[in-house]
Amino acid sequence: MKRNIYIRNTPLQDAITSFNQALEGAGYFAPDEEWVPVRECLGRVTSRAVLSKRSSPHYQASAMDGIAVQARDTYAASETNPVRIDESQYLMVDTGDYVPPPFDAVVMIEDVNFINNQAEIIKAAVPWQHIRSVGEDLVAQDMIVPSYYTLGSFEVAALISAGLDQVAVFKQPLVGIIPTGTELVQNAAIDLEPGKIVESNSYMLASLCRMWGAKTIRHPIVEDDWDKLLAAVQDMQPQCDLLVICSGSSAGREDYTSALIETLGEVLHHGLAIKPGKPAILGMIGAKPVIGVPGYPVSAQLVFTLFARPLIYRKQGLAVPQSEAADCQLTRKLASPMGVDEFIYVNLARVRERLLAYPLSRGAGISSNLVRADGVITIASGQEGINAGEKTTAILTRSRREVERSLVCMGSHDLCIDFLTDYLRRQHDIRLLSANVGSMGGIMALLRGETHMAGIHLLDTERGEYNVSYLQRYLTGQNWRLINVAKRQQGLIVKKGNPLGITALAALTDPEVRFINRQKGAGTRILLDYLLKQQGIKPDQINGYTREEYTHLAVAAAVKNDACDCGLGIMSVARVMELDFVPLAEEQYDLCLLIDFFPEAWLDILSEALANIAFRNNLKEMGGYNLELTGQLIADNKLH
Amino acid sequence: MKRNIYIRNTPLQDAITSFNQALEGAGYFAPDEEWVPVRECLGRVTSRAVLSKRSSPHYQASAMDGIAVQARDTYAASETNPVRIDESQYLMVDTGDYVPPPFDAVVMIEDVNFINNQAEIIKAAVPWQHIRSVGEDLVAQDMIVPSYYTLGSFEVAALISAGLDQVAVFKQPLVGIIPTGTELVQNAAIDLEPGKIVESNSYMLASLCRMWGAKTIRHPIVEDDWDKLLAAVQDMQPQCDLLVICSGSSAGREDYTSALIETLGEVLHHGLAIKPGKPAILGMIGAKPVIGVPGYPVSAQLVFTLFARPLIYRKQGLAVPQSEAADCQLTRKLASPMGVDEFIYVNLARVRERLLAYPLSRGAGISSNLVRADGVITIASGQEGINAGEKTTAILTRSRREVERSLVCMGSHDLCIDFLTDYLRRQHDIRLLSANVGSMGGIMALLRGETHMAGIHLLDTERGEYNVSYLQRYLTGQNWRLINVAKRQQGLIVKKGNPLGITALAALTDPEVRFINRQKGAGTRILLDYLLKQQGIKPDQINGYTREEYTHLAVAAAVKNDACDCGLGIMSVARVMELDFVPLAEEQYDLCLLIDFFPEAWLDILSEALANIAFRNNLKEMGGYNLELTGQLIADNKLH
Repeated sequence: MKRNIYIRNTPLQDAITSFNQALEGAGYFAPDEEWVPVRECLGRVTSRAVLSKRSSPHYQASAMDGIAVQARDTYAASETNPVRIDESQYLMVDTGDYVPPPFDAVVMIEDVNFINNQAEIIKAAVPWQHIRSVGEDLVAQDMIVPSYYTLGSFEVAALISAGLDQVAVFKQPLVGIIPTGTELVQNAAIDLEPGKIVESNSYMLASLCRMWGAKTIRHPIVEDDWDKLLAAVQDMQPQCDLLVICSGSSAGREDYTSALIETLGEVLHHGLAIKPGKPAILGMIGAKPVIGVPGYPVSAQLVFTLFARPLIYRKQGLAVPQSEAADCQLTRKLASPMGVDEFIYVNLARVRERLLAYPLSRGAGISSNLVRADGVITIASGQEGINAGEKTTAILTRSRREVERSLVCMGSHDLCIDFLTDYLRRQHDIRLLSANVGSMGGIMALLRGETHMAGIHLLDTERGEYNVSYLQRYLTGQNWRLINVAKRQQGLIVKKGNPLGITALAALTDPEVRFINRQKGAGTRILLDYLLKQQGIKPDQINGYTREEYTHLAVAAAVKNDACDCGLGIMSVARVMELDFVPLAEEQYDLCLLIDFFPEAWLDILSEALANIAFRNNLKEMGGYNLELTGQLIADNKLH
Repeated sequence: MKRNIYIRNTPLQDAITSFNQALEGAGYFAPDEEWVPVRECLGRVTSRAVLSKRSSPHYQASAMDGIAVQARDTYAASETNPVRIDESQYLMVDTGDYVPPPFDAVVMIEDVNFINNQAEIIKAAVPWQHIRSVGEDLVAQDMIVPSYYTLGSFEVAALISAGLDQVAVFKQPLVGIIPTGTELVQNAAIDLEPGKIVESNSYMLASLCRMWGAKTIRHPIVEDDWDKLLAAVQDMQPQCDLLVICSGSSAGREDYTSALIETLGEVLHHGLAIKPGKPAILGMIGAKPVIGVPGYPVSAQLVFTLFARPLIYRKQGLAVPQSEAADCQLTRKLASPMGVDEFIYVNLARVRERLLAYPLSRGAGISSNLVRADGVITIASGQEGINAGEKTTAILTRSRREVERSLVCMGSHDLCIDFLTDYLRRQHDIRLLSANVGSMGGIMALLRGETHMAGIHLLDTERGEYNVSYLQRYLTGQNWRLINVAKRQQGLIVKKGNPLGITALAALTDPEVRFINRQKGAGTRILLDYLLKQQGIKPDQINGYTREEYTHLAVAAAVKNDACDCGLGIMSVARVMELDFVPLAEEQYDLCLLIDFFPEAWLDILSEALANIAFRNNLKEMGGYNLELTGQLIADNKLH
C-alpha cells in the first residue's frame, strides 16, 4: 500500500465550486418530491404551491350564540316597539352552527327575550349580521402557501381545514455513513485496551444531519479491508443521497478510500488547502456525492459542515441558514500558514465593553474543544495570522445570549470551579467560562483585562502567606477584591496502594520514580520548587521534572494510566480518581475579582454561590478542603 | 345547561402570575429526570453535570504516521551525522496507535530513511514529541457539560468518547390533548355537510408542542357529553404533565369544561382580559395544570402559547426563547377596547426605508391569518389603540430575512398573483406579499407609499381605456411605470349548467336571482356600474347589490355553495371553480410599479417573471386571458 503524498491541496472555494458544478451537471439537485399526510407535515418544505380544496367555513355559519332570523322580519323592532316572531320564524343557533336559507341574520342571545315560544327582539337586524360567510377563512382554490415554504404548526391546521389529506414536499435526503478503521470499537468497557477507540464520529455526523433536516443510516464499523469496505460502499451507496466515509486519519487509510471511490466512480479532490481537514476526499459515484472525512473529529465535522450541509439544505428546497457573526478581539496572536484557510475555534465572552475571543488549542483530535467552542474564526489563505487585540469576526456556534451571559475565570484549576459552573448555570443561567492557565497566568489575564476573575494559590515564600503580595505587585492599577474559596491539601498523588512506598518528597530523587510536573507559573509548581529548595533537592535529580501537565486532573490521569508514578496535586483530585495521596502542605485557594469589570448583580450572585450549603457540602464530601475562610474577604484594593 | 356570563375577566399578567404560583406551590416544577442512551441524546437538556468516565485518549497515542523511539537514542543525530537505530529500538506506528513504554517520542515517517531494517534519523527527537498524552482531549472526571445544558452533535460524540452509555436529562413533558365538540369530525370528504367541521386545532397544538420540545398524546374527538368528556379527562390526565381541552367556542361549551375541571380539581381562572382568547380556562387537577382553550383557532393557539409554552420550556430546564422584536409603523389605525390586552396579527414588509405593519383582519376564526402573519402587535389594556403611522413593536413569527425580502402588491385580485408569488419564491427567494383591496385600494396604497406595486383594472368610462387616466389623476408626485399582465374576460359567474338560464346582465333584475357584488373601489364593481348604467338598470333592482365580497374567488365560492346565484368576476376563476360563465367584457389588468421604491434588481426579476414561459402557459391553461400585451410597458411616468 503506497503512502499518499498530496500533490495538490485544492483551495477551499475552488473545491466548493467544482464539487457543486459536478453535482449540478449530474442533475443531483433536481427536486425529489414525496406526498406526506397533512397531519405529519410539520417542518417539511412544500415542493409545489398548495391550494385549498374546500372553502372554510364551507357553509354560512353563526358567529354567535343566538337565533337565526330573516332580517326583514325584524326591521320594525326598537326598544320602545319590540317585535315578536314565532317559532317558525327563527332557529336557535350556537357559534359555528349552520344558518340555512332563508335565514340571513343572527341575533345575539343576550338581545332576545323568550316569551312562551316567541322571541322578542328590540333592535332591527342588519342582513348578514353575525354570520360568517362561506370562505371567510379560506376560499376553495386559494393558494395557502407557495412552493419552497416550510410548513409550521399553523399550516398543519390550515391544510386540514382546507380539505387536504396529503401535501407534496421535498424528500428529506438520506445520508449514509460508513465508519471504517480496525482500531474502532462499537461499545467498550471503561478499561479499553490501548490503541482502540470507541467509534463516535458517525454519531456526531448523524446528529448534524438530523439538525440539518436529513435522515441517516449508519453502517456497522468496517475494518481496514478492501473487500469489506467495497462491499459496504456498494451496499449503502445506491440507497443514499449522500455517502460519507469516516475514513481514519492515517495517510494510508485515506489513499485506500480514495482508490476505492476511484474504482466505483470519480475522485474530484483529494486534499484541501484547509486546516484542519486537509485529508478530505470529494468524489462522485454515479450522480451522487461521496465525501471522505478525516478521522480526527474536529476535521471530520469541519469538512462535513463545509461540504455536506449546503447539499442537505439545497436538496430540501431550503436556503442554507446564515450563522450569526460577531465582531470580537483576539486575546492572543495567531500565526497561520499562507496558502491555507485555517479555522480556529474560540471561546467568546464580553469582559467590560470588549467581546473577547479566546483561541482554543488547535489539535484536530481534541473533540472536547467542539463542545467548549462558542465560535469559529477563519484566517484566510492570504493572511499570515491575526495579532493579539486585532479585531476579527467569529461565526457563532452558540447562542449570542449565552455568550453575553458569560463570566470568565482564568487561572489555577480546582474542582470547585466545576461546582461553581454548574451552580451558576442552574440557578442564574450564567455561563462560567474557565480556563486553566495556572495562578500566574490568571494574574496576567487580570492585568490584560481578559478575565472577570482568577483562581489563585500563590505562596509568598518570604512571608509564608498567600496571594496578596503577588496582587499588590502586579495589579497596581486596578480595583480588585480577594475572596477565599477554601484551604486545601496539596501532596503527592500516587498509585492506589502506593506500590513504590512514597512517603515524602525525597522519594522523587530515586531515578526509578517517574514524576510528572505542572507548567511554569502554576501555583503547584511554585509550591513544589519552594518545598524542594527547603529540602535541598535539585530539579535535575527528579526523573520527569521537565514533563508538564496543565491541571490537577491531568496529573492524576497520568498516574492512573501509568504514564508516570507520581505528581504534585490536590487531595480532592486524588480521591476522585481513586488514587492514594501523600499530604505535604495546606494552601489557600482564593478568587481575585476585578470588581469594575463585574456586572453589579453578579458580585452578589458569586457571594451567594460561595455561601451556598450545597456548594460547601460538595467540597466537604470530596475531602482535602478546609472551609474556615470560605467566602471571606481576604483583601480589598480600592483605588477610588 | 346554564349560559355562562363572565363575572370577571382576569388581567393577563395576574393570570400568568397566579397560575405559576399555584403550580410552583404544588411542586410542579420539580425536575423530572430520565436516563437516555448517549447515542440518542441529541437536543435533550442535562439534568445534572456530566463528568467524563474515561480519559481520551486513554493511552499515549502517536499523533503522526512514523516510528516510535526513545528520544535518548536520537540525541546525537544531525543532518551531517545521522543516527541509525536497530529494529529493536523502534516501532512502526500510524496516527492513533499506542506508543508503549519505554518509547517516549515519535519521528515522522517523512524524516526517516530505512536502510535494510535500520532506521536512519537526521534530527534529535525531543521527549514526548508527536505523542498525544493521556487525557489530551478529556481527562477522567473532567466536567464535559454542566446541568441545564442542551446536548448537540458535538456533545453526542464527546459523551461517547468519555465512556458514557447513558446521560441524565430532563423528561420531555407529555401534553395530553382532548378535542371536544359534537360538530367535529376526524376525516371528511370534500362535500362535508353544513355545520360539521374537520378537527384541526388538536393537530395545531400538538405541532406547537413538538416545536417546543414536548411529546403529545391526542384523545379521539369527544362529543358534547358530560360522561364521555369526564371519562376522557380521567383517562388522559394521570399520564400527562399538562392537559389541554380544546373546548369549543360556544359559551355553553366552556361552562361545561369549566364545571368538569371544578369537579375533578380547581378552576383558577375562567375568562381572561385578552382579545382574542377571552373564554380561556386555567385550572389544576391534582398537582398538574389543565388548560381549556377556546374553539376558534386564533384564540386557541394564543391562549396555548401564552400559558403552555413557558411551562413546557421550564419543565425541560430551558429558558423560554425570546422572540425577535422589530420596530415598525402601522399602516392603519387600530382601536382597541380599554381593559383588554389585544393581540393583532400583522404582515410586515420594508417599503423604501420603512418597516410597515399591515394589520390582518381580527376574526378569531380566520386560521389562515396565522399562516399569513409575520408578527404580532400587542395593544396593552391601558391603551385605546394605535394610530396609523405610529411606531410600534411587532414580535416576529417569521424570519427577519423573509420579512426583509418582501415585495408588496396591493390592489385588485387575479389568480396570476398566485403564480407570481410562487415563481418569485421558487426562483428568487422573494416573498410576494399581496393584499386584495381592489384597484382603487391599490392606488391609495401606492399614494401612501405602502406598497411597491398594485394590480389594477380601472375603466375610464369616458375615454373607454384602462388605468392610465386614474394614475395620472392620483399619482401626480411619483415616478411610476405601468406594465400589462394580461387582458381578461369579465362576466357573470353562474352555477354549473346555468340552471336559471342567465345570458345577460338584464337577468339580475329578476328578484329570484340572488346576486353577490364586489366591494366599492373594486375594478369589477366599477365595470358593473358602468354596464348597468349603459343598460339603464338601477342598483336597487338587483337582489344582493349591497352584499359584498372581496375577491373573484370569494364570489365564485358563494355561487358554488349556493349562498347566491351569480356574481360578476373573471372567467379563469369560474373555470377553476368548475362553474359556468357568461362573458360580458374584456378588460386590461396591469401592474403599476413605484420604481423609486423598487430594489433595482427586483425590477428585472419582475420583467423576467412576466416573460416566463411557464407563467404564460399557466394563464393560457386557465382560460379567459389574452396575452397580446403581457409584459409590455403601457405607460412610464418619469418626474426626473
